[in-house]
Amino acid sequence: MALSPGTHPPLRVAVLGCGVVGTEVVRRLVTEGDELAARAGARLELVGVAVRSLDVERDPVVDRALLTTDAESLVEKADVVVELMGGIEPARTLVLRAVEHGASVVTANKALLAQDGPALYDAADAAGVDLYFEAAVAGAIPIVRPVRESLAGDTVLRVLGIVNGTTNYVLDSMTTEGLGLEEAVTEAQALGYAEADPTADVEGYDAAAKAAILASLAFHTRVALADVDRVGITALTADDVTWAGRTGHVLKLLAVAERARTAEGRDGVLVRVQPTLVPSDHPLAGVRQAFNAVFVEAEAAGELMFYGRGAGGAPTASAVLGDLVSVVRHRVLGGKGPVESSHADLPVLDGGEARSRYQVRLEVDDRPGVLARVAAELAAQDVSIEAVRQVLQAGDDPAATLVITTHTAPERALRATVDAVSALDVVRRVVSVLPVL
Amino acid sequence: MALSPGTHPPLRVAVLGCGVVGTEVVRRLVTEGDELAARAGARLELVGVAVRSLDVERDPVVDRALLTTDAESLVEKADVVVELMGGIEPARTLVLRAVEHGASVVTANKALLAQDGPALYDAADAAGVDLYFEAAVAGAIPIVRPVRESLAGDTVLRVLGIVNGTTNYVLDSMTTEGLGLEEAVTEAQALGYAEADPTADVEGYDAAAKAAILASLAFHTRVALADVDRVGITALTADDVTWAGRTGHVLKLLAVAERARTAEGRDGVLVRVQPTLVPSDHPLAGVRQAFNAVFVEAEAAGELMFYGRGAGGAPTASAVLGDLVSVVRHRVLGGKGPVESSHADLPVLDGGEARSRYQVRLEVDDRPGVLARVAAELAAQDVSIEAVRQVLQAGDDPAATLVITTHTAPERALRATVDAVSALDVVRRVVSVLPVL
Repeated sequence: MALSPGTHPPLRVAVLGCGVVGTEVVRRLVTEGDELAARAGARLELVGVAVRSLDVERDPVVDRALLTTDAESLVEKADVVVELMGGIEPARTLVLRAVEHGASVVTANKALLAQDGPALYDAADAAGVDLYFEAAVAGAIPIVRPVRESLAGDTVLRVLGIVNGTTNYVLDSMTTEGLGLEEAVTEAQALGYAEADPTADVEGYDAAAKAAILASLAFHTRVALADVDRVGITALTADDVTWAGRTGHVLKLLAVAERARTAEGRDGVLVRVQPTLVPSDHPLAGVRQAFNAVFVEAEAAGELMFYGRGAGGAPTASAVLGDLVSVVRHRVLGGKGPVESSHADLPVLDGGEARSRYQVRLEVDDRPGVLARVAAELAAQDVSIEAVRQVLQAGDDPAATLVITTHTAPERALRATVDAVSALDVVRRVVSVLPVL
Repeated sequence: MALSPGTHPPLRVAVLGCGVVGTEVVRRLVTEGDELAARAGARLELVGVAVRSLDVERDPVVDRALLTTDAESLVEKADVVVELMGGIEPARTLVLRAVEHGASVVTANKALLAQDGPALYDAADAAGVDLYFEAAVAGAIPIVRPVRESLAGDTVLRVLGIVNGTTNYVLDSMTTEGLGLEEAVTEAQALGYAEADPTADVEGYDAAAKAAILASLAFHTRVALADVDRVGITALTADDVTWAGRTGHVLKLLAVAERARTAEGRDGVLVRVQPTLVPSDHPLAGVRQAFNAVFVEAEAAGELMFYGRGAGGAPTASAVLGDLVSVVRHRVLGGKGPVESSHADLPVLDGGEARSRYQVRLEVDDRPGVLARVAAELAAQDVSIEAVRQVLQAGDDPAATLVITTHTAPERALRATVDAVSALDVVRRVVSVLPVL
């Protein structure tokens, strides 16, 4: 029963979308046909590539005869549909149509999965076909399969990572080149690391979608995009980056999904995306440019880290083709991959339940007694102080910057503290409040 | 068709071996029964634990009534056999017997797979059952599944890693505490990181078995233990470690499997295990204590890194249970996992074809013209020099240590150079020859 591509009829593959990733997928289907056939157990016959327009100039590897604007008809004649269009519609309708016609689906569409995953998983399950999506999270890095399968016998406690290459590139440029946010975004756009409209990346929506997907897999619980507490990087300044460095940290946009228990003893999951101060000696601090890295902490396995390229045509195509080989193998050998598992059904807790260390930066009057008054407000909320640093500001008006790092505290208590502190007459401004990993 | 453990009869699980890992596997089967059933789609009923002796004191989580010394009978009444005995026999016979009786097998036995893998894969394939072995390589780190499945649509160029925790612990102690090899091994034994007889670890056999398994998966080619060029750490001295540090490196025992082309243009794979000088700023240099890390370079995916605990009861049990859930799912949902893929059948090249930078350390007479004579021998073999460092030794006899770092050269040429250099009358001793990553 060894795999032999000669004995199984070819399987028809339709690719929806022919951007950077789609082109790379087509390239490997064309150039690696024999090798893919040997690995999958059947030849993969590319039957069409759905595009929005036939009039765009494309890489010559894409046979123009295969292009079509009629995606609806294309999915009906495929055994496997590779969805690389992105966005919600028409991707959603096409994936459902493919599944209803008995095709397995491979997708890289995190926005769609984070919004409508459960409906799509149910449809694929009912039709007995596979819906695979390794490429939707952290590009080439195998993270979906390890969390869903390798750790299926373990209890995941926390997933923590840098899952958006654009914002990591921007923050890295701000850190290493001293650029301001706008300049860094412009540079990232010029180099192709950021899109013309960078909103989805810089506001954290892309990272939040990936966090929702990872949390769903890790905790066997349905977590939707709306469940993710999300803060982007748009409020960060060059000053924030400088202060991060001065206090031994690097600013990173982290996605965090963790098992948590409320003060009342309720179990649940917390999922958030937020700029975070990462200690300089932590492995995540060394993740440069547009790379991604995901930490997983599990009860038995301990700490695992996965690192690699989180975006780009070729890396994303690698993940798509790995999934393609898997779903084709299932067609050839029988069986199907793991289905959605939401049996644990843990409640998603309010972000206020999150516990973290925090760094609060204040601009205060430079006069005796200020620190005592600020410290009293923290004490009143049971927030204890780990470190304080005060730096006098040059100028006529005697002001100082006060940087307070707290011990672990609930976000709710921290917010209340910040409100109280900002109301003090000696406090001119709460400049920033950032969690510390 | 959602998984529901109520609708499928329980599956019978036999565990062979009840050491540290076996005990942890039993513990999770007992304490996480409901959760595992929900994930796997059927309850896992532990029907027996095969041990060598009934008279040993054991963790109370292991029900004494389940213990048996009759492993042969036990495997015949199981749907899934978890082999954690280690060693070649009786593990080999028991795995084959299990497969012949239609049981799927999960094993952590790298020695067995590196020696007899193909026969076992064939037997499992013929019987239509799964043979899974994530725990055989790098403990809890998901590496088998990513290489075998996630990268199935890509072309792996190189796999490179620290896959033996014992030797990494020993080298780390030598580096950070300045211990000699023997002291460091003794310390590792006292802490449970090395066995009473550390031969398999310190001579590189364990790493070589893992390298053979990873190479087989990555290159779709059968690579046996005997194909691996192996050098252990037993010849390393405190001096080697000190010199590594002085030249900006850290000594690590690396397993390397790579696609290569000979001078005559023949394609093949090279697989070796050897102490290697890793630049201090390379991520592998930062892998401390008994941790493992594996780098994978693939054509489309680029560079990926996987990091975590490579040994220990709980981490290894995590990998075993992930496999267990996978094979049980296949029983419940139908189908089976990927089979061995050896279609590429690349020749395993001779180690002399390997190309690397090298660091050669010599003890030479301290007199004019020595470096010129040594350099002439390198030039005669076309080995070019990247850097030279000469340090005078204190003492009556005017001697010097000469440390030469070469540019990339074939190992064969390097060896010939070293032979020629060692024959020079001004060269007192070739102290060490180490590849540089």
